[in-house]
Amino acid sequence: MKIQWPHCSTHKSFASDNNSGIHPAILDAIQRANHGHFVAYGDDPYTQEALRVFKQIFGASTETFFVYNGTGANVTGLSTITKTFHSILTTDTAHIVCDECGSPEKMTGCSLKQLPNTLGKLSPRQLYRFLEYKGIEHHSQPKVVSITQATELGTVYTPEEIKEICDFAHQNNMYVHLDGARIANAAATLHLPLKAMTMDCGVDVLSFGGTKNGMAYGEALVFASPDLAADALFVRKQHAQLASKMRFISAQFLAYFDQDLWLQNATCANRMAHYLKSAIQSQLPEVRIAKPVESNAVFVYLPKNKAPLLQKESFFYPWDQDSSEYRWMTSFDTTEQDIEEFVSRMKKILSS
Amino acid sequence: MKIQWPHCSTHKSFASDNNSGIHPAILDAIQRANHGHFVAYGDDPYTQEALRVFKQIFGASTETFFVYNGTGANVTGLSTITKTFHSILTTDTAHIVCDECGSPEKMTGCSLKQLPNTLGKLSPRQLYRFLEYKGIEHHSQPKVVSITQATELGTVYTPEEIKEICDFAHQNNMYVHLDGARIANAAATLHLPLKAMTMDCGVDVLSFGGTKNGMAYGEALVFASPDLAADALFVRKQHAQLASKMRFISAQFLAYFDQDLWLQNATCANRMAHYLKSAIQSQLPEVRIAKPVESNAVFVYLPKNKAPLLQKESFFYPWDQDSSEYRWMTSFDTTEQDIEEFVSRMKKILSS
Amino acid sequence: MKIQWPHCSTHKSFASDNNSGIHPAILDAIQRANHGHFVAYGDDPYTQEALRVFKQIFGASTETFFVYNGTGANVTGLSTITKTFHSILTTDTAHIVCDECGSPEKMTGCSLKQLPNTLGKLSPRQLYRFLEYKGIEHHSQPKVVSITQATELGTVYTPEEIKEICDFAHQNNMYVHLDGARIANAAATLHLPLKAMTMDCGVDVLSFGGTKNGMAYGEALVFASPDLAADALFVRKQHAQLASKMRFISAQFLAYFDQDLWLQNATCANRMAHYLKSAIQSQLPEVRIAKPVESNAVFVYLPKNKAPLLQKESFFYPWDQDSSEYRWMTSFDTTEQDIEEFVSRMKKILSS
Amino acid sequence: MKIQWPHCSTHKSFASDNNSGIHPAILDAIQRANHGHFVAYGDDPYTQEALRVFKQIFGASTETFFVYNGTGANVTGLSTITKTFHSILTTDTAHIVCDECGSPEKMTGCSLKQLPNTLGKLSPRQLYRFLEYKGIEHHSQPKVVSITQATELGTVYTPEEIKEICDFAHQNNMYVHLDGARIANAAATLHLPLKAMTMDCGVDVLSFGGTKNGMAYGEALVFASPDLAADALFVRKQHAQLASKMRFISAQFLAYFDQDLWLQNATCANRMAHYLKSAIQSQLPEVRIAKPVESNAVFVYLPKNKAPLLQKESFFYPWDQDSSEYRWMTSFDTTEQDIEEFVSRMKKILSS
Repeated sequence: MKIQWPHCSTHKSFASDNNSGIHPAILDAIQRANHGHFVAYGDDPYTQEALRVFKQIFGASTETFFVYNGTGANVTGLSTITKTFHSILTTDTAHIVCDECGSPEKMTGCSLKQLPNTLGKLSPRQLYRFLEYKGIEHHSQPKVVSITQATELGTVYTPEEIKEICDFAHQNNMYVHLDGARIANAAATLHLPLKAMTMDCGVDVLSFGGTKNGMAYGEALVFASPDLAADALFVRKQHAQLASKMRFISAQFLAYFDQDLWLQNATCANRMAHYLKSAIQSQLPEVRIAKPVESNAVFVYLPKNKAPLLQKESFFYPWDQDSSEYRWMTSFDTTEQDIEEFVSRMKKILSS
Repeated sequence: MKIQWPHCSTHKSFASDNNSGIHPAILDAIQRANHGHFVAYGDDPYTQEALRVFKQIFGASTETFFVYNGTGANVTGLSTITKTFHSILTTDTAHIVCDECGSPEKMTGCSLKQLPNTLGKLSPRQLYRFLEYKGIEHHSQPKVVSITQATELGTVYTPEEIKEICDFAHQNNMYVHLDGARIANAAATLHLPLKAMTMDCGVDVLSFGGTKNGMAYGEALVFASPDLAADALFVRKQHAQLASKMRFISAQFLAYFDQDLWLQNATCANRMAHYLKSAIQSQLPEVRIAKPVESNAVFVYLPKNKAPLLQKESFFYPWDQDSSEYRWMTSFDTTEQDIEEFVSRMKKILSS
Repeated sequence: MKIQWPHCSTHKSFASDNNSGIHPAILDAIQRANHGHFVAYGDDPYTQEALRVFKQIFGASTETFFVYNGTGANVTGLSTITKTFHSILTTDTAHIVCDECGSPEKMTGCSLKQLPNTLGKLSPRQLYRFLEYKGIEHHSQPKVVSITQATELGTVYTPEEIKEICDFAHQNNMYVHLDGARIANAAATLHLPLKAMTMDCGVDVLSFGGTKNGMAYGEALVFASPDLAADALFVRKQHAQLASKMRFISAQFLAYFDQDLWLQNATCANRMAHYLKSAIQSQLPEVRIAKPVESNAVFVYLPKNKAPLLQKESFFYPWDQDSSEYRWMTSFDTTEQDIEEFVSRMKKILSS
Repeated sequence: MKIQWPHCSTHKSFASDNNSGIHPAILDAIQRANHGHFVAYGDDPYTQEALRVFKQIFGASTETFFVYNGTGANVTGLSTITKTFHSILTTDTAHIVCDECGSPEKMTGCSLKQLPNTLGKLSPRQLYRFLEYKGIEHHSQPKVVSITQATELGTVYTPEEIKEICDFAHQNNMYVHLDGARIANAAATLHLPLKAMTMDCGVDVLSFGGTKNGMAYGEALVFASPDLAADALFVRKQHAQLASKMRFISAQFLAYFDQDLWLQNATCANRMAHYLKSAIQSQLPEVRIAKPVESNAVFVYLPKNKAPLLQKESFFYPWDQDSSEYRWMTSFDTTEQDIEEFVSRMKKILSS
């Protein structure tokens, strides 16, 4: 059979950071690990080294498990620390609520309590009323608070905010899950080591994202302690998240951490978001910034009549059709030139 | 952070075909697809071309969905065509029964009926008694027959055998799922086009494996018709099997089918299994061949007292400790020299 | 073994209508059906007659299944008409959200969207935004709107309100489930036949309650058509809701409908709620009525410092501790004298 | 509405013990508990006394939960002590395998390993091979052995046999669940106290049946210790097995244990099975006894050509159509006269 290899070239997209490809150093690592035979499912030297690195970053008592993707990390993490009669308290904008096609409910059996967000964030104040449910058989038992960092709205929790949520949770025999699909972007904003903004604040389970920040595939699930991780080995396999040729995920993570590539990538993406914001403010008066820019997302209000034309010119997603709010995202490989071109194309349509 | 890149070299392993790496042409395809930005989750030209190729191979009415791995393909396929009160009739050696940590039960909610195998195979004779359950609410309703090709014992169903199972199933309002983790090896044995040995026999859902035969990750789930596939889009996402940067799975499949690389790889693996069998028969009289060699697995009886030493020399898996049966597998990249070295190392221990 | 039969007598409770016992005519029906042997699981003349009666009440095309309790009815009904990737749109006060310990999520696998209620009710206005999710694999697919009648806040939907919700649902390929744990009380308020306020409005699946209105146990699940009910037989069994000695549920329903006992019971309970409201207004000035009294619930604001003493005198449940709101309920067997005594006991404490 | 109360009289059935009705003393207990108001869901004096009685019977450290039916007891018990990646080792004739429409798989998520039975029984010999799976993520982790007493084939485990299974389980960090839908019949055969044949042998979770032996509905789930029962409160509710008017289940159990009614009932049923066996042997030479009669079931081989006529005369269930094996069961209310009439009716057809 003869294949027709696609010939295509594209502008950089501002629709999502996952429209980007693989960082060259990460692809190179896949190549370097591609020799000989190694025991499958993680019993190989690349995985051993990568797991060692995760312990070095997050603490000696942590336990890490590699999975395929973000939803896989979230539901495997949540299943590992819950029973079906538990509930998970989170925001109404959470990825686990809105963007995983009900995977958390099906895979954990838990109830997701969808609380109103404040710029994508949750506050302990919102959680107190669920304490009344504790011990009463008619109610799902509150067990996990799940937050996202950076949030789905591009904002970033301070370590103090996270610590306050974790303290509340632990005082009430609950756990905190952090969906870190974009934790690198949050770290770049906070200028803090990864441990300081997660495990040191009390986070129990972390979905550590890689794919949106330069990897081809693969995420890591980090548990704060061996006790929390006790069932993770089996839950990961039962959830079909165990990679047979795991060395190729592990090798990517090795390159990801080598010379802080992860942080360089995220810093670049964030910087480009701020550059985009400035360019909008100076060149696109019809466009209003909708949310504080704290990571690599820029939420904007677009003129209702022009929005479809802009999307046609360069596809991006609506956030709230009613208020004509849209999301633009930058990526690890976005350049100043990409932004200038994008803004110029938007400008052309807006001023026509 | 400074990473210590593992320095390691290994002998080829005979433990499993998934101990191998990525075929160079497939890695090259990942590289070629790694430019620019493309819409995530499959709306890219590589995926479009790969889906076109699958239609060309399996028929215009088929619908294909890419997933991460074999277990993901099996449970997503089975969930898509069942309801929780259905039962799935399969063998007691099936991967879905033995090697997926209960993923099918959890993800489908179905009951798995584990029927005695004959050299890894199922026969329609074994299925008749389940027809009595039809329509009676006390019993899981038989809905799917699941078979594996090549089987977990390395044997290969003839197209006639598959057709007979499919005819039985369809006459009784049931479906046939084929776990094709090693379907390439079966095709290399049967010298038949993929369609002739699957959809043309009546297979309804096919888990089409790639990872064991030269890919880094990624499998395809092929449904015989759009009706069967109606829910697959959502089930795949809910099962956390939807890759964001899907173009890198798709590009692998393009290389996999280009110039029939898949068939060359499988043919090589099969040929090496036969070569290994011959070498055993001529050079290792203490080792008995336990099963017919029909694909890339060689099942052997080893002397009980020597088996642990042999495993220590070059790790491989036991199949049945009681009868001292073990499994040796060849891979797409196994060479005659690898086999000669392996047999020579085994011989040294056996004759010591 | 010698048993110590409890000797106890109690005041009537205003905590919940399920604190009551069995109406004498219903217990009598159990006794009348208690002779000889009948085929188990529903193939008996009592069940046949009861099913005939349900068809007569709700329409010839309906199909009814008896189950044990309200949660069983709700989750069996919802499972029958959903797939795991569907979502169920309902209020944040719904019994399925708050009071079933996450049974709907575990048993259906679906996501429950918990929308803000207006006096316990939902309006189609709140549902439009979920239509954007249709066909997009990242989101649970909206499939069912679930409402409660009478609502958890004691209010009653008008038939027009229900029809509007059903029309919206049907126009968008969705279903409506009605949790009718207290539908008898709603019927007594609306002065309408059961069919006119359910199936005639477009309700697809009805959990028809009996236990709170004079039965010992047993509820009915009514589907608007055989198509909707196609899987119910198996789902009921798989959910452990199939009674072996079903004739004793069926006999209860026969008595329940005989001479409209169900309506007499509900009318009595409702009348007593209004009597209680009047008594409060005339005799307990410290107590404010919190919600419109439309069925058999009276929500009240109690003085914060006195509430615990009142609960100690005669136990009842808090509704919202912050606002000091509590719920008092009347039952089919509540009498004017019971209310007078209750109000008098409350008064004594409030004025002390 | 006017109801047509069925007028019907029937012969006693030999199809199943659940075709019988309610023992008069048990119905009387329902009536005696039917006065006044009591807190729902079990916080009433009847339930308190019944739970005290269960502690007295099974030991002070046991914890009991009332549920609606046998499937409810089995799946609630199994869910309480398992995680989804566990497997449950049982026989291929087990009720949980054959007769619960896949409820255990859906509700627990576990894999059921269906081992060949010997006269309905399991032996520890069959379990050893699953120990190899322990700790290996590819395999469901063996966690529970589930046996039935009396078995589905009417045979009875000796306490020694049960103890041997429990010892094996506990030595390997596993639990034993006993499906005691007919445990009363086994007790009547063994002439042993209930505790001696269950908890004293090491049983961890017991589904204690009542419905087949004279109750209207209701079973008890008995855990050997508070630790084992820690989650049962919530699992029961989530499984829709929590009765609101629980006093009516509890009152039945009070009557059930009063003056050992349970044992009288079971002894009667067993005695009638032996009487039936004798009558067959002396009067129906064409009928062969197929299994040892050890409780209240009599398995028989019937002449193939006559079996349908016999079933038409008095309905009963086939066990194995191929070998023309059928099951006849006696009940707590079966009399010698019932048997004589039944045998006489069978004889008439067999000799025609």
